[in-house]
Amino acid sequence: MKSVHRCVSEERLREDITANAEFGAIQTDRGHGRTVLTGTDANRQAREYMVDRFDAADLDVRVDAVGNITGRWVPEGVDPTSQAVACGSHLDSVPEGGIFDGVLGVYSGLEAVRALQAADVKLTRPIEVVCFTEEEGARFSNGVLGSSVASGKRSVEDALALEDDDGVSLEAALSDIGFRGTGRLDASEWDSWLELHVEQGERLQDAGAAVGIVSAITGTIRCEVEIEGEANHSGSTAMSDRTDALTAASELVLEVERATNDVVAEEGDTVVGTVGSLNIWPNAINVVPGRAELGIDVRDVEYEHMERIVKRVQNHLVTLEADRGVETMLERPYDIAPSTMSERCTSALADAATATDVDFLSVHSGAGHDTMHIASVTETGLLFAPSRGGFSHSPREWTDWSSCTTATRVLTAGLAQLARQ
Amino acid sequence: MKSVHRCVSEERLREDITANAEFGAIQTDRGHGRTVLTGTDANRQAREYMVDRFDAADLDVRVDAVGNITGRWVPEGVDPTSQAVACGSHLDSVPEGGIFDGVLGVYSGLEAVRALQAADVKLTRPIEVVCFTEEEGARFSNGVLGSSVASGKRSVEDALALEDDDGVSLEAALSDIGFRGTGRLDASEWDSWLELHVEQGERLQDAGAAVGIVSAITGTIRCEVEIEGEANHSGSTAMSDRTDALTAASELVLEVERATNDVVAEEGDTVVGTVGSLNIWPNAINVVPGRAELGIDVRDVEYEHMERIVKRVQNHLVTLEADRGVETMLERPYDIAPSTMSERCTSALADAATATDVDFLSVHSGAGHDTMHIASVTETGLLFAPSRGGFSHSPREWTDWSSCTTATRVLTAGLAQLARQ
Repeated sequence: MKSVHRCVSEERLREDITANAEFGAIQTDRGHGRTVLTGTDANRQAREYMVDRFDAADLDVRVDAVGNITGRWVPEGVDPTSQAVACGSHLDSVPEGGIFDGVLGVYSGLEAVRALQAADVKLTRPIEVVCFTEEEGARFSNGVLGSSVASGKRSVEDALALEDDDGVSLEAALSDIGFRGTGRLDASEWDSWLELHVEQGERLQDAGAAVGIVSAITGTIRCEVEIEGEANHSGSTAMSDRTDALTAASELVLEVERATNDVVAEEGDTVVGTVGSLNIWPNAINVVPGRAELGIDVRDVEYEHMERIVKRVQNHLVTLEADRGVETMLERPYDIAPSTMSERCTSALADAATATDVDFLSVHSGAGHDTMHIASVTETGLLFAPSRGGFSHSPREWTDWSSCTTATRVLTAGLAQLARQ
Repeated sequence: MKSVHRCVSEERLREDITANAEFGAIQTDRGHGRTVLTGTDANRQAREYMVDRFDAADLDVRVDAVGNITGRWVPEGVDPTSQAVACGSHLDSVPEGGIFDGVLGVYSGLEAVRALQAADVKLTRPIEVVCFTEEEGARFSNGVLGSSVASGKRSVEDALALEDDDGVSLEAALSDIGFRGTGRLDASEWDSWLELHVEQGERLQDAGAAVGIVSAITGTIRCEVEIEGEANHSGSTAMSDRTDALTAASELVLEVERATNDVVAEEGDTVVGTVGSLNIWPNAINVVPGRAELGIDVRDVEYEHMERIVKRVQNHLVTLEADRGVETMLERPYDIAPSTMSERCTSALADAATATDVDFLSVHSGAGHDTMHIASVTETGLLFAPSRGGFSHSPREWTDWSSCTTATRVLTAGLAQLARQ
């Protein structure tokens, strides 16, 4: 038996990722960027290229109603009704995103299958390579759209009815590019799932580790806060007569930071809290701000830690109302619990790293991934490849080709182990 | 001799202001709004109506190169070469502004002349009614544009070359509406200047005073601050690895407030400090903000008090650089010293109020006005009419017609006194 991970070809992997990088490519001074939103022409090109490559590897291609694509390989002698081991990621990008995010997960999966086909490995389960629709949420949703349907969290109907800012539905956009398929990909039918993704941080680089094996994906609570004060002339309104929405908002921004740092001090640095968006009205230098809207993003591997921060935010709003006379409102439009990766998948990846002589680091994922949804219906593992400088959602995102290959070898060995069980 | 202030007609004044309110009128649920930007069709209509009214009152109309308009009345027997007493304000508005701001100053000036013509008052000086171009600065400038040229602070050439956001020059816009005249209105040739304006605050209303006589107009220092941090993924960037531009900006917003309140406590409540504008990048809920820009507006009747606040801002930027690792930059694009009104003009207004049996309050002006520039080249006085609820730069701006009339009577008596000296 030929050692399976030695059959992984850096050349083939690089060719696929480089070819995919042309679809939606953008002009940029630094790095390599692309904009591939769901249902656009660039998305069609990326999907069609991938389907061609799946065909070339003799995978049985299916497209479900929300555009999730699977390429299924049933190795010789394997019972086609047995539960598959699945892997993959996504091909869509944020606007002006990088060329590896999601793409590495899809094409490493395909390369793993090609390597397994080339090596004479005896498997007992089919393998499926998957491309989920709209992981990034840059057009129709908050993100992880395809996997939310595949895990049964959202119905096909609700998903297809989602509209972009111009009122175009997901269904129309998918039909338009020829990827509105039928049925629903059901991730609960899988034996297990592995996703390889770029890290989007610098921990692996800092530790000199070749791959990261994720123990848990943080949950995310997002709060949208509105603060209503009173807009007034900045020259003729005495300090004591003001109800300034921005000074109130500034206090809240600092309270989010303080509350998060307090939880970090008590519980460790997996917890993060961010005010990423802030808009004020009328936003003119000579007017006391009358209104502010803030977007707060809180994440941790422990839900209770996140709740502690949100509670501090809520308490602080009460204080702001009392002390500053503003009116406030808090909504929680996005609330996803942390997900722990399964022991079996994590062990398979660790064994695979050891077998391929690769140093790994056990990490958590602060970024959300499709795996987060899949974890609620089957056993999952998540593997990271190092991101140079930690750049993400940017043309400066970069993972060395050798790092891509090393991580793909670990993925391949991991898939082999799971598909032999 | 007929008492001059009794010749002031509320009906004529109201007719003019109401007619002017139609030009650029906007739909609004509450109040009466208009948008009259320099060089637009609404501005042309407003100017043409005013010129017609000047003509009807036998004023000699001149338009200078930057569109400042004067209507000159030389009473019978007056040496036409003697220095004029001037009064007026502006007809342009902010976007969605009110119908009194500036307009009351122009039409009260015209009404004063009509009243003086009707009364048999012996004067020794010509009277000029003036409409300055772009006091609000909503299209070509930071504001007080026409008076900056009339006071020699800005050259005609520099003013005409100013461009709006679409690259249209002031010269082209004024030519377009037929108000690019010739020469330069020179305010230093005036004996004195009076401006009647709505208060844009609530002090008169609160004190039950019919008019306010302004002792000084606050100076204004505007600072534009840039804070450069590092944009990063909100999920995968630990709190200790961040250089968050928004948390730094929030500290600065609160420091502006704190520094201003400290000066208020030491020096009194004429001083105000505001962060009115704040923009962050990329302004996405899942990205740590990498950049922030703030607009700070500081005003007082004492320049040294303003400087004290700006110094605190500068010191705090040093602290932010040291503590938070951000880079900062501060510019001071707008720096106008406070202006004290002249004793002669202020006394004339006070005498006028007494003569017309009107309660007045001595106040400072926190808002800038054309008078601020004129004060640097001749003797000036500024009179306020009460604003209901203090609303300003809003369709909710309102001054009762009877209040307009009362203030116009005081203005008229004040002009008569100055034009007799």
